[in-house]
Amino acid sequence: MPEVATINRQVRLAERPVGLPGPATWDVVESEVPEPRDGQFVVRTAFISLDPAMRGWLNDVRSYVPPVEVGAVMRAHAVGHVVASQHPDFTVGEPVAGMFGVREYAVSDGRGVVHVDEDVAPLPTWLGALGMPGMTAYFGLFDVGRAKQGDVVVVSGAAGAVGSVVGQLAKHAGCTVIGIAGGAEKCAWVTDELGFDAAIDYKAERVGRALREHAPDGIDVYFDNVGGEILDDALARLRLGARVVICGAISGYNATEPVPGPARYLSLLVNRASMAGFIVFDYEDRYGEAAAAISEMLRDGALVAREQVTPGGIAAFGDTLNLLFAGANTGKLVLDVRD
Amino acid sequence: MPEVATINRQVRLAERPVGLPGPATWDVVESEVPEPRDGQFVVRTAFISLDPAMRGWLNDVRSYVPPVEVGAVMRAHAVGHVVASQHPDFTVGEPVAGMFGVREYAVSDGRGVVHVDEDVAPLPTWLGALGMPGMTAYFGLFDVGRAKQGDVVVVSGAAGAVGSVVGQLAKHAGCTVIGIAGGAEKCAWVTDELGFDAAIDYKAERVGRALREHAPDGIDVYFDNVGGEILDDALARLRLGARVVICGAISGYNATEPVPGPARYLSLLVNRASMAGFIVFDYEDRYGEAAAAISEMLRDGALVAREQVTPGGIAAFGDTLNLLFAGANTGKLVLDVRD
Repeated sequence: MPEVATINRQVRLAERPVGLPGPATWDVVESEVPEPRDGQFVVRTAFISLDPAMRGWLNDVRSYVPPVEVGAVMRAHAVGHVVASQHPDFTVGEPVAGMFGVREYAVSDGRGVVHVDEDVAPLPTWLGALGMPGMTAYFGLFDVGRAKQGDVVVVSGAAGAVGSVVGQLAKHAGCTVIGIAGGAEKCAWVTDELGFDAAIDYKAERVGRALREHAPDGIDVYFDNVGGEILDDALARLRLGARVVICGAISGYNATEPVPGPARYLSLLVNRASMAGFIVFDYEDRYGEAAAAISEMLRDGALVAREQVTPGGIAAFGDTLNLLFAGANTGKLVLDVRD
Repeated sequence: MPEVATINRQVRLAERPVGLPGPATWDVVESEVPEPRDGQFVVRTAFISLDPAMRGWLNDVRSYVPPVEVGAVMRAHAVGHVVASQHPDFTVGEPVAGMFGVREYAVSDGRGVVHVDEDVAPLPTWLGALGMPGMTAYFGLFDVGRAKQGDVVVVSGAAGAVGSVVGQLAKHAGCTVIGIAGGAEKCAWVTDELGFDAAIDYKAERVGRALREHAPDGIDVYFDNVGGEILDDALARLRLGARVVICGAISGYNATEPVPGPARYLSLLVNRASMAGFIVFDYEDRYGEAAAAISEMLRDGALVAREQVTPGGIAAFGDTLNLLFAGANTGKLVLDVRD
């Protein structure tokens, strides 16, 4: 457990970005380390989560959460240790995960905070397979996508935090799994290490043709993290009654021009298929179910949880976030903010 | 019951159209009036249905039914009378509805043929509210769209064969109903005669702004017959958990350039909404349920069934079909092919 310092570095939104966030988007500022009041505790963060959804939170538009206000500390999931507590359920020294923001010290009243068990998995995994990405994969695949044994499941962003778990959960459930990822290295990882049946390198192959080859009878579940042309390629290969799960659309998040919609959407009609979006927060009261299933798979070696932990501390947040949009990460991208 | 003639006029697909079908698309040919063999009967058609879906059947692409082959009689629903029978369930003189094709005389083995009751409604209505459009409206609204009391339902193509029934069924089920149609006359019809709560004239109003006005809290069910920009306008106004029913996309059926997809599809994600297509034929074993509900509403005066019956006989098929794509019909468009 780190010693309590007197300076609390944090990243605030300086101005709303147009396109890819840049240096002007962020302010790194210092403030005092807070003191907990009654019913509160203070966390020293250790690892901060970087998520594609963060890009959406920077836009001043109606969405499923309010935008981050200009001047406010950037919203982020993080894991760390309690360093001071006036809260009966949180004791000094224990590891916790929550929406603590991009800062070294955060005050919390415990809402939405999870007790972390380092015997199950190390801290960064609690931001990945046991964090929001894992929950997202589980409920998106099984509840929204209704994946079941024998289904052909295709997932884009297959080497990412969510996609890598989606594919492994689907394999475990008896599905045939095809991943779409960028680059030979990521593709090799999802087939060789994660056990996907096939991988398509969208930077080197024509995705539509590759899907025809790997899924000759069509797709039952398409789990989409990327949007754009790849969504259209998958729509063109749906089977009767297919389910398209809209989890994200990272290919368009930094666009400065309007992004075209999926031109092949009438495949939904011809194939009596459906396309549905979801927000993982809606499943909050069932996180325990997903965490139990994923923990068991981790324990049995049936699930590989990989995090890409980057150094640099709080000040590196902006550059690290952009790795996501460059497709430079494999597995869950996490910023190390320990001293 | 008409006398049996010796000439059987019929419309065949001469060549596949590019864009809007034209005179070169169709051949009007004469053949002999067929004789029924054992287990068959012959129908003299009286009214032939014109449906937007017909445009899709002309394209040589994989779909929910095989394309109409070049040289084949055009596929069409029709109503008429049995004029000769070697089938135990169909007697000479009785009115029937089925997929008889664009011709004056058709042979049938009875598969998919419905016995028509003229006490419930006159023949043309069996191609509209009591035919495929009515079935489409019923199952699309209640099964796919899961419309229920209190929902805000928006339907495009509101003055068309399907849309006009969708809106009336939704009103009857206790929904607030907003129709989108082209022109003041159609809009007046759906509000004044059919009882919709509001109508938006897409030719005169900005649909997005009008939806904001008429559905200030958003849309629960959007039943789409048209696609294009109107689909995007509706997507932008979805409520949490909304259902988008993809029934058709007539705005793009004759396009010769690729039609853009719905750019606002990520509204499905933000609003945990879904978009699903369907094909009415999948509900064939439940047509009785829909027909009973619609018949009862007709009897009670709770549903207005309107057909636009055009003259000209078999040879007028091509020109009459194009009225659909010009938005020139109100209610169900039907071709009179009686002598």
